[in-house]
This record gives sequence, structure tokens and C-alpha cells, in this order.
Amino acid sequence: MIQFHHTTLPNGLTLLAEADSDAHTAALGFFVRTGARDESPHVMGVSHYLEHMMFKGTARRSADDVNREFDELGANYNAFTSHEQTVYYAQVLPEFLASAADLLGDMLRPALREEDFTLEKNVILEEIGMYDDRPEWRLQDTLLETYFNGHPLGHRVLGTHQTVGDLTAAQMRDYFSQRYSPDNIIVAAAGQVDFDALVSQLTGLTAAWPPTDARREGGDPRPAAVQQRLTDDRVTRHYLAMLAPAPSAQDPQRYAAKVLADMLGDSDGSRLYWNLVDPGLAEEADFSFMPQDGSGAWFAFAACTPGRADAVEAKLLETLDQAASGDVPLEEDEVTRAKNKLATGATLQGERPLGRMMRLGSQWMYLDRYLPLEEDLEALMAVTRHDLRSLLAAYPFQPRTIVRLGRGEGGAA
Amino acid sequence: MIQFHHTTLPNGLTLLAEADSDAHTAALGFFVRTGARDESPHVMGVSHYLEHMMFKGTARRSADDVNREFDELGANYNAFTSHEQTVYYAQVLPEFLASAADLLGDMLRPALREEDFTLEKNVILEEIGMYDDRPEWRLQDTLLETYFNGHPLGHRVLGTHQTVGDLTAAQMRDYFSQRYSPDNIIVAAAGQVDFDALVSQLTGLTAAWPPTDARREGGDPRPAAVQQRLTDDRVTRHYLAMLAPAPSAQDPQRYAAKVLADMLGDSDGSRLYWNLVDPGLAEEADFSFMPQDGSGAWFAFAACTPGRADAVEAKLLETLDQAASGDVPLEEDEVTRAKNKLATGATLQGERPLGRMMRLGSQWMYLDRYLPLEEDLEALMAVTRHDLRSLLAAYPFQPRTIVRLGRGEGGAA
Repeated sequence: MIQFHHTTLPNGLTLLAEADSDAHTAALGFFVRTGARDESPHVMGVSHYLEHMMFKGTARRSADDVNREFDELGANYNAFTSHEQTVYYAQVLPEFLASAADLLGDMLRPALREEDFTLEKNVILEEIGMYDDRPEWRLQDTLLETYFNGHPLGHRVLGTHQTVGDLTAAQMRDYFSQRYSPDNIIVAAAGQVDFDALVSQLTGLTAAWPPTDARREGGDPRPAAVQQRLTDDRVTRHYLAMLAPAPSAQDPQRYAAKVLADMLGDSDGSRLYWNLVDPGLAEEADFSFMPQDGSGAWFAFAACTPGRADAVEAKLLETLDQAASGDVPLEEDEVTRAKNKLATGATLQGERPLGRMMRLGSQWMYLDRYLPLEEDLEALMAVTRHDLRSLLAAYPFQPRTIVRLGRGEGGAA
Repeated sequence: MIQFHHTTLPNGLTLLAEADSDAHTAALGFFVRTGARDESPHVMGVSHYLEHMMFKGTARRSADDVNREFDELGANYNAFTSHEQTVYYAQVLPEFLASAADLLGDMLRPALREEDFTLEKNVILEEIGMYDDRPEWRLQDTLLETYFNGHPLGHRVLGTHQTVGDLTAAQMRDYFSQRYSPDNIIVAAAGQVDFDALVSQLTGLTAAWPPTDARREGGDPRPAAVQQRLTDDRVTRHYLAMLAPAPSAQDPQRYAAKVLADMLGDSDGSRLYWNLVDPGLAEEADFSFMPQDGSGAWFAFAACTPGRADAVEAKLLETLDQAASGDVPLEEDEVTRAKNKLATGATLQGERPLGRMMRLGSQWMYLDRYLPLEEDLEALMAVTRHDLRSLLAAYPFQPRTIVRLGRGEGGAA
């Protein structure tokens, strides 16, 4: 039996749980509503760099202590940074939940020692270097930058050699104090959880955290419609990626958008799969829906041998355009297939405390309210062909930005 | 409440389930006790190639039917081939379990049509080509080949351009009839499962499958102790990998081996982590236990900048040797940490029908009996320092084969 709990502490910290007395583990996550889109351009990468610094110790713990304590708890733990959130989490056996909460909570007030900052900078710069070594990954950075056209959603999560190289510990401390305010953080738990105990523990732990009324700036993106070609002689394949506007994470049309993306672009069977991958034209062809805070995007991607670059791009765009125009009508059975796949995926996610916790924290971040899994599934299963046609009329894969990556003329295979 | 079920059909097919009436999904897998180690050298890669062919249709289904039906069920499905097993599985909502069983069961009697065989050969050859593009992946193939010294455990799962290029459909059919015998297959289910219904369905579906009394040949490996260096100017880092003998998947010492591998080589905190990764000497340093059928191996891996190659190798070997000799004694708290981590991992795996099903099928394949998760956890938690010392005396990381990969002299950074 899953029981939802919610409270907000006086300092603004939101606490959520889906407690399940039958679960054998517990998952706990701290969701900070901040990421690459919340950075000034000259400190690009600070969110991700700061995430690394959180593991380097606090006033009462050294970096070794943090690592060793997670180990002692046998915890499965990690953190990640995206354009819109920075998340720290752990999965543990229930008897270790309170210790994990103490450790994660303490970590979120990092010491940010100058010498650790300097050492970690090299780690980040090496990570950026590894990205440079993978031209097909860099394609996506370029696409985001071009499409978002000056809006901070086009920032690189890792930052650049320049911005990370120039960053000072003082700038990081400023960013931290503004963004890691308790009213900008959601704590979500799931599984074998005693919510009251968690609330009283975190009330004590975060009592001195000052709220700053952190907000997200930057306004709405004004996406570009640009076509671009990158060359790199290290790649053996041709790559193609596209972005276009789609509904936001708050938009009721997001359910229809998920169904449409699955129908058109799921890698296991979809229009792109049947038109491009199954006949062997492309090795990969995906289309997905990227909901974001206040806006959203369609994302398409294909990889093929260089000789088929033009044919693949033409077929991919034709597949999307024929869906938008209604020239290839939406069939009832393809809608049903997509809904079944999405329902299976959501049910599988809901089976684990980790999946529950991730869903709970992310959803609250965007919606500021609780949406039970059952309600989510109902809304998904209620999507009709009519809804999909309205969606396509509002978001017809235009304006679109396309970036291609292949070998230069001299290096062509 | 989890309920174990087991039966063997007259044709030798083993059926297993961990039924859980509270689960919201079901997972089903067909485990075939065959893989690269069961291939003659001249048909190396046939197991993996055959796995692909299983998705190309049967007497009553075309390749498109197979794909479309999985889609209609909203199934999360896949297959994989290793040295010792070939596994086909699906996760579905409970109402689709019978359809998934029909589809997977039918797939395991593939049509193996000549034209599909020819088309798929190109897909496999491209996959081998992609491997050739990743020198650090090829390092492992070379290591296995060298260490296993002519024994089929050194086969490449994908095969080579030569063996796959030369393979005929007739050879594949031969391999199929010998190895995909019902007495060489285990069907495992977990989650929301009606076992009696599954048994009667599979009894009908597999009634005509002829048992062949398939066995595993090849004897025990006689590992080599070789040191080798590969050069490739496409890599920017230095890589190092090592194999040495360890307990088998059936050996009672396997629990101690898991604890030891975690203590020495877990990437989140272990002796190698603290000696190599934390101080920034290596970017990656792992040590793991690879249990196999009748034998087993220790596997170590490290990646670093080329200038640190010698220092990293020396430190890695020193860390292992000092554990084996007792020069750096095993501490109670590091043993406890390792056991806690392994217990968390096993409990997390047991939380999902997919994890339960995978555990059930693989374990039966090696042990020919049921081992409840609780019993497994007890055996793990019972490991003592004394057990670890006995293990180290029996498997002291010798004889060892080491393969290194870096740039050639001319291309060194």
C-alpha cells in the first residue's frame, strides 16, 4: 500500500514521500531546482562543477568521510546535473535511511575548500576533454546552442574550457548561496520510509539554511531555424540531429506529445524505425519529446553511412512532415501500441523505490503538486487521435534547426 | 508474498517461477545454456548471430510480425549472448504475459530463411566493425583470447570478419538443432504469474521440440601467464587489463570472492579506488569477479594518461599482491562495507520482477537448483576474514595475463 506524504518546512524546504510498508529498500533524493539554464554565460558549467564539489566534504566531514560513509551504508548513490535540475540521491536498506539523510543533507552545505576547488577543476577539464574526443556527443551541444539562440537552455552543462578554466571559488560560492536555498529544494523519498521521522530529522538538519527566494530567470526561448554542417575526420558515420518546439512539462498536451514521440520515433518499432532502420537505410533513427520548464522541444537523431546522408535526412523529414500534414493518417492501432509501451514503462518505473522517488521529485519540481502514478496512467491512456491532431497543429516540427556531422570532403569514405 | 514453482516437462524443458501476487508486471525469460564457448572455432560468432536471427520470424510469423507483436504488447524486450548463455526476455503488464510467452516460445523455433540470413550477416559484420573502431573494447577480446589460450572461453562473442563472413545458413541450422534442445533451455518467470497456466501453455507450445541431450564440451581452461602490449594511435589514454583464476559459479567460495572483489575493486570506494582513482593517478581502476561454469576469473582494468602507465600498473599489482600476501591485512570494517554494498545490490535486484527472473534463470543454469534470495544473502553476510584468507591462498591472482594498450612510440602524447 503506497501512502503519500507532504510537508513544507518554515525555511521553504519541501518534503515528499511515497511510503510503502512492503518495500525492502528506501530511496531518498535532494532535487535542487537549478542547472545550466540558471547560470550566467561567463560561469557556464558552475552547476555541474558544484555538484562534484558536494562530494568533497563539509564543515564536519572530509571528502574521504563522505565517500567512506556512503560505503559503510552499502549505499547505491549518485548525482546528476541537467539544464534544469541538480539531483543527489541514494538507495539503501531501510535501516540506513536516517544515516543516508544525514549524509546527503550535510553534503548540501559543502565546505567548498579552495584546494579541493583547484584539484577538482582538472577533473572537470578532463571530462570536457573527453567530450571533445567524441564528435557525435559534441553534435548535441552545438545543436542546443544554435537552436536556443542565446537563451540559457542552449548552455553546455559541462561548460567550456574557457568558462570552467576561469571560474573562481568565490563565483561558485555566490552561485551556491543564491541557488541552493531551501525554498529551491525538494526532498523526495520512497519505499520503506518513516515520514515523520524524516521530517523531524531534516527540520533539525536544515534549520540554519537561509531561504533566498530563488527564482528562475531568462524568460521563454525564441528558437532559431538554422541548418548547419560540422565536419570532423575522426567520425566514420554521418550524424544528423534536429530540434523543434514542443509542449512544456506543465502543458496538458504533454501526454499526447509522449504518445506521438513513441509512435514516430521509438527505437523498438515506430514510423522512423520502419522507414529507416528496418530497411537498413540508417543504423539509428530516434525521435523524442523533451519537456522542459515552461517550454519543450522535439528532438530527432539519425546515424548512417556517409553515402546515405541525403536519403536518410529526406526520409526522416518526410516521415515527420507526413504525420504533421495528415498525409499519412494516424492509425488507431499505432496509437494503442504507443500507449501500451508507455504504460508498461511507467508501471515498471513505479515498481522500484528509486523510480517512485525520481518521479515524485521531478514531478513536484515542474507541477508543484502530487500526481499519483494511476492518474498519470489514466491521462496517458485517454489520449485520442483527435488530441494528437490538435497537438500536431500546434507543434508541427517547425521552426526547426538541423545540425549535421560528417567527415570533411578530403576525408570522405 | 513470493512463491517458488518448478517443473520439468517430458521433453526436458525446465520451468521456474517466483510468483508475486502483489506485482504489477511480469517478466519472462528463455535461458539457453549455449554461447561462444560452445562453438567450434570455425563458426565462432554463431551463437550471437543466431540470437539476431530469432527476431527474423518463424513458420507462422514474419520478422515484421515479431516486432509488431512485441510492440502491441507494449513489451520491454531484449536478448543477449555471452560466452555461456543466450537469453531472450520480455517484461509486460500481467494481462499480456500469455501473449508474450506465445511469442517468445514461437521465436525459439526460427525459420532461419536464407535471405534473412544473408541480410543479417551485414548487420553483424557492421557490429564487428564498430568494435574495431573502439580499441579499448578490443583490448578485452585480446585479453580473453590470450589468457584462455586455445580454450573456447577465449572466443569472441561476436566472432570475426572471417568466421562470420564464412558462416553458412546450414552451419547455423546444425548449431541450432544441437544447442536449442528443450533439455538445454530454462524458462524463468517472475512477478504477477499464473504458473499452472504458463506450464500448460508451454507444454503445448514445445510438445514437438526434440530433445538432443545437449552437453557442454571443452573441458577446463588452462590459463596462460603472458604479458602483451598492443599499440593503436587512435587512443589518447593508456589501458591495462588483467585476468587470473578465481572460483567458479558453483564454488561455495564464490561468496567470499564477491566480497573480496568489492573490497579491492569497487569503483565507488575500495583499495584500488583509494590507491589509484582518489589521488588522481588513474581515471578508472576496477577489479571484479567473473564466475563461470566450472571455472572463474579475476578481472582487473585501469585507464590513465600515458605518462602514468608504469606507475599505475605497479600500484595496481602491488595493491592486489599485498592483499594476497597479507602485507596489508584485511580489516573488519572494509569487509563489512563490502558486504553491505553487495546486500543492497542484491536486495535492489530482488525488488523487480526483471531482477528476480534474471537471478532465477541464471542461478538454475549453474546450480540446477533453487536458491532463495534470503539464503543467498545469508551466505554472503556469513563471509569472514578467515574465509577471505583461505580464498586468497587458493586464488592469489596467479598465473596472471596482462594486456596493455597505448599509442605507438611515434604517436605518444
